[in-house]
Amino acid sequence: MAEEAKPAQPEEQPKEAEVKKTATPNHIYIGKKPLMTYAMSALIQLAQSGEVVLKARGMVISRAVDVSQIIVKRLGQGAYEIKDVKIDTEQVGSGDTVRNVSTIEIVVGKK
Amino acid sequence: MAEEAKPAQPEEQPKEAEVKKTATPNHIYIGKKPLMTYAMSALIQLAQSGEVVLKARGMVISRAVDVSQIIVKRLGQGAYEIKDVKIDTEQVGSGDTVRNVSTIEIVVGKK
Repeated sequence: MAEEAKPAQPEEQPKEAEVKKTATPNHIYIGKKPLMTYAMSALIQLAQSGEVVLKARGMVISRAVDVSQIIVKRLGQGAYEIKDVKIDTEQVGSGDTVRNVSTIEIVVGKK
Repeated sequence: MAEEAKPAQPEEQPKEAEVKKTATPNHIYIGKKPLMTYAMSALIQLAQSGEVVLKARGMVISRAVDVSQIIVKRLGQGAYEIKDVKIDTEQVGSGDTVRNVSTIEIVVGKK
């Protein structure tokens, strides 16, 4: 019964590991939602912490670039800029279905 | 008849202007062809000049990242690396149909 009192722990562990690995909790993962959803989340993060990292994989990489441009050119009123852009490869799947997927990390911060 | 002797000139002019504008003739514009087509062109350019710039707009931005990763991780045998990544916005169309398109420039060069 003591184990049942902490049902959330196994789920929390990968999250903690991820935060440790990247050392920044201010990441936004870009997916298929409307661009403005991500742009708004990013602006809130920027107002709070002054920096946000937009991450995307595969086909939605272009959407991450779109979000960064919306923040910098349209919504940010000139207060923010692209600090860094990193591109890399990640392995997705396992065994026979393993494949490489390109990733992007766009760091947006205060000027 | 003298004009007819140079039919290629009007076509060559935008090409020259482009080279002047960017000051580097080693650009590869990524489109809808198979990724390996661009990867091969890029490797030839890298062997000749030691640096290549991969450019893409809109939806094919993710393909430009794919090409850069193929060169760096798979075909380049560890000889090349990502030197710089720039993202920006370009205006496409005119009048009522003008719209913003995100762009990427990935500089790949010798280590």
